[in-house]
Amino acid sequence: MNKIKKWNQALLVGLMAATLAACGGTEEKGTAKAEQKVDVIHWKMVTTWPKNLPGMGTGAEALAKNIKEMSNGRLDIKVYAAGELVPALEVFDAVSRGTAQMGHGSAYYWKGKVAAAQFFSTVPFGFNAQEFNAWIAYGGGLELWEDIYAPFNLIPMVAGNAGVQMGGWFNKEINSLEDFKGLKMRMPGLGGEVLKKVGASPINLPGSEVFTALQTGTIDATEWVGPYNDLAFGLYKAAKYYYYPGWHEPGSAVEVIFNKDAFAALPKDLQAIARAAVKQANLDMINEFTARNNDALQTLVNEHNVILKPFPRDLLEALKKASAETLEEVAANDPNSQKVYESFKNFMAPVSEWHDVSERAYINARADD
Amino acid sequence: MNKIKKWNQALLVGLMAATLAACGGTEEKGTAKAEQKVDVIHWKMVTTWPKNLPGMGTGAEALAKNIKEMSNGRLDIKVYAAGELVPALEVFDAVSRGTAQMGHGSAYYWKGKVAAAQFFSTVPFGFNAQEFNAWIAYGGGLELWEDIYAPFNLIPMVAGNAGVQMGGWFNKEINSLEDFKGLKMRMPGLGGEVLKKVGASPINLPGSEVFTALQTGTIDATEWVGPYNDLAFGLYKAAKYYYYPGWHEPGSAVEVIFNKDAFAALPKDLQAIARAAVKQANLDMINEFTARNNDALQTLVNEHNVILKPFPRDLLEALKKASAETLEEVAANDPNSQKVYESFKNFMAPVSEWHDVSERAYINARADD
Repeated sequence: MNKIKKWNQALLVGLMAATLAACGGTEEKGTAKAEQKVDVIHWKMVTTWPKNLPGMGTGAEALAKNIKEMSNGRLDIKVYAAGELVPALEVFDAVSRGTAQMGHGSAYYWKGKVAAAQFFSTVPFGFNAQEFNAWIAYGGGLELWEDIYAPFNLIPMVAGNAGVQMGGWFNKEINSLEDFKGLKMRMPGLGGEVLKKVGASPINLPGSEVFTALQTGTIDATEWVGPYNDLAFGLYKAAKYYYYPGWHEPGSAVEVIFNKDAFAALPKDLQAIARAAVKQANLDMINEFTARNNDALQTLVNEHNVILKPFPRDLLEALKKASAETLEEVAANDPNSQKVYESFKNFMAPVSEWHDVSERAYINARADD
Repeated sequence: MNKIKKWNQALLVGLMAATLAACGGTEEKGTAKAEQKVDVIHWKMVTTWPKNLPGMGTGAEALAKNIKEMSNGRLDIKVYAAGELVPALEVFDAVSRGTAQMGHGSAYYWKGKVAAAQFFSTVPFGFNAQEFNAWIAYGGGLELWEDIYAPFNLIPMVAGNAGVQMGGWFNKEINSLEDFKGLKMRMPGLGGEVLKKVGASPINLPGSEVFTALQTGTIDATEWVGPYNDLAFGLYKAAKYYYYPGWHEPGSAVEVIFNKDAFAALPKDLQAIARAAVKQANLDMINEFTARNNDALQTLVNEHNVILKPFPRDLLEALKKASAETLEEVAANDPNSQKVYESFKNFMAPVSEWHDVSERAYINARADD
């Protein structure tokens, strides 16, 4: 949950006045337009992000803008940053009851309410972005997600992905699994559960306290996102070892939720527009993170003298084993989680096999080492 | 060029009657609809694919269907398989002169006309799908592509990706670079140029002749696509060694081209709809290949006793070096290719560095070996 607080504490909380103008002012030469009396549908989209948070907040704004353009102004969606209309953690409920027609966030925020939801953001040693999207579209993922959200009067869709994240910031070198014993690391959620199993001490801190805690030694390490966001957050000033890969979040998906009644009331063309715009947003976001992360990484390494290191192999093996155990436990405690976990495993095994001979074999062949 | 013939020879050339009904028959409850007198814009989309070729041909049909739904029937696009309206290799010219308003194919088909075009499909040891999309969106790729197609009155967009392909079918084991010396392998395009440099003999055969040539020993090996398409083509009956990875086509992109005047004449909302629908198609296609390839691979290995093998490391190193030389030569011969190659390199270096610590490190950590 602290993930949200961390976003709230992030850089760009300055408010931008909502600039979505009411429809009707645009000049169009479309043949149909001239004879058309447009009824504008006004919607609200509540989000879990600070205004214009790079990638996530900006993605929500772009989504609304694209839907407006595609609908020729007929579907006009005002975007609210976390706290503007409802607090971040109330986005799910607000859309469920229709206070807003759309929400933009990430599914694992709702795990207290819907345990299985966390499978629809990212899980330790789970899917990367490409695999997650394929599971949703062709592996039965979307149908399960829809079933699980249906009792809440919600329709979920994938609206973005931040890709493989970084392993985190450490104030000492990690040379083996032994160095994780007793390590105080800030990590919420499933990753924290996994840490416990390998002997570390996961600490759950709000984002606002992370920097100081790391700088003063209250914690030894923290996870965050990836270079694009981490650079902006300034963590390189508090710890100099930057480890990879982000085993705990290998493909963090962003979700859009629609109030089911509101969506059903849309004309079919606007429904199709909304669906396509969300897919466009999904592709746009991973493109942005893929393109932007390395620039930030170079700045961290070359200008801020961050030491970039891979986790040792024995540690990764232990984390992998502990991750599988953690997922088994989550599944055992909740029938919906069990169903989703089965689907996850049924897609993970074959897609991993395929990616071993395609993506993995290729990316290893391409590398110089 | 033979790539097209190979598609033409493929399985599903049976014609499906064009079922795109004229607009106006759909019942909509949309508020705007009742007062709207819809002027339907009728377009033609010519493609380089056999009707309903899995992934590619079906992708073109889905794209037209989605645009029709999103536009409430205002943009009605009839899709033509290769040869129905124009032959596959005339798609570029047909859209350029406005015979059709849209085309669906792959950019390297036009390399005889526009040498730089092949950078916008896939190049040996180049981008995977995720990297290609990011280069197009954030690395200056799209702007260059648009510049290069502008003199032909065309606007290009990415409409799909088949992902990392397989290395091909061989009638003998490949244990080292030595085994490629004198090897007669069917491989068109840049991959063929690379083969020459490592001592193999690239053979340029139309798809219709590949199976027999491989079975009779006229050729020792052939590349094709990936398991999803290769299984259907039956190549396992002609050779039993199936090698990976597809170093020559690590992320084969599908393109859509629009006639510039036709696109400009669309109302802004239909332009936005077309753009979003193409991005949706892009995401949908990689999802389909990601999800489908492993099932086909399992069938090949378990039911048809295909022997799945990785290329030896020394061979891959030699192919990588030869690929870089080949790209340098292509660039040296053509100013546009030079410009695109510079942009390609300027994005490849950082995105590879980033993916080394994210995608690559993660996918290796996840694997059991």
